[in-house]
Amino acid sequence: MIDLHHCVSARSFRPLWLLEELGIPYRLHMLPFPPRVHARDYLARNPLGTVPLLEDGATRLTESAAMCHYLATRYGAGVLDVAPADAAYGSYLNWLFMSDATLTFPQTLVLRYSYFEPPDRLQPQVAADYARWFLARLRAVDAALQHEPYLCAGRFTAADVAVTYALHLAQHLGLAAQFPPAVADYWQRMQARPAFQRALQAQHQAALDQAVDPTPSPDLRPA
Amino acid sequence: MIDLHHCVSARSFRPLWLLEELGIPYRLHMLPFPPRVHARDYLARNPLGTVPLLEDGATRLTESAAMCHYLATRYGAGVLDVAPADAAYGSYLNWLFMSDATLTFPQTLVLRYSYFEPPDRLQPQVAADYARWFLARLRAVDAALQHEPYLCAGRFTAADVAVTYALHLAQHLGLAAQFPPAVADYWQRMQARPAFQRALQAQHQAALDQAVDPTPSPDLRPA
Repeated sequence: MIDLHHCVSARSFRPLWLLEELGIPYRLHMLPFPPRVHARDYLARNPLGTVPLLEDGATRLTESAAMCHYLATRYGAGVLDVAPADAAYGSYLNWLFMSDATLTFPQTLVLRYSYFEPPDRLQPQVAADYARWFLARLRAVDAALQHEPYLCAGRFTAADVAVTYALHLAQHLGLAAQFPPAVADYWQRMQARPAFQRALQAQHQAALDQAVDPTPSPDLRPA
Repeated sequence: MIDLHHCVSARSFRPLWLLEELGIPYRLHMLPFPPRVHARDYLARNPLGTVPLLEDGATRLTESAAMCHYLATRYGAGVLDVAPADAAYGSYLNWLFMSDATLTFPQTLVLRYSYFEPPDRLQPQVAADYARWFLARLRAVDAALQHEPYLCAGRFTAADVAVTYALHLAQHLGLAAQFPPAVADYWQRMQARPAFQRALQAQHQAALDQAVDPTPSPDLRPA
């Protein structure tokens, strides 16, 4: 059984949605945000105090995009992954890595320096620099979607899950109004997937069941 | 033939070193840093103007850690990658993703706001926040190396290439003095690998041959 440690709408939404897409059984453990402050016990399980954490027997992962590829190749081979021999393999891997390093991390700067720091440490210049940086990188997503419904391989893959989470976070940050039309349309189509909706419902219900605030908590890896 | 577009000591050092480890033929194209300013022709090839760019026929990748996994699975299967059925597969993927999203991106904040911005836009607080953030995450590398010579699978893999680049960048930034002992030892051992040395030599010689300044240019994805 797979154990996923999650804060509402944090990056762990990626593997949560992917588990729902593949119909893999899992246990969802909700944590208050940030866990290193509000769930000190969690540090015994993950000394960095960060979410996500995915446990699959002795295997532990902390990187949400890695979890998507791991689950897709281990438990859904051929359904949501792209095989090394496929012509789209390089593109698929590139989107997976880009989803977090290039499309999510810059948004955590916006969060941190617009909302999470105490007033004397807010940095509007830095938040603006990285909102612009994110939107510039989004041009690559826009280009890929001009003539295709999905990012690569002509079908829905784990790369779509991983990249769409960056759009989800951008909506929380108020950046969705600046999505180019093809990205805005894609974001609507991804949200309409039944597994996306089931993942939203699963985190909401688990938060209520486990007495955690069900309000979306933006994902900032704490300093 | 693989084409790798590279600035001296930028993230493209990852695939360059990996190509040397596997003995795969490649063409190395050196660019002045930052290419979007000093090599406007390059924008036709990569509209974002960023390095790295790896071209393998019609396949194009821009994420350096993705390139490591791509090359390892496509051209060196079993030598530097870890197969999905292996017990270390999850750990291997996690290190690959962590190498850039968690261990490299924070350092680009240090670079940008300590060195690259004009004086009135430097942000010493932000640079200090993300130097500390990087060093905190390095504890995970330290923990992995307490009883093992490599990060996962009991052998040298593409994950070691990807993570070691973050240490290489940290040395440029003056953070190496703060490496914990196991990390400092690992960094020395990785640099001693013949393929690491060949990659250093290859970029130096290619810079001279192509009339590009051979001084290491830290990799900041431009704003």
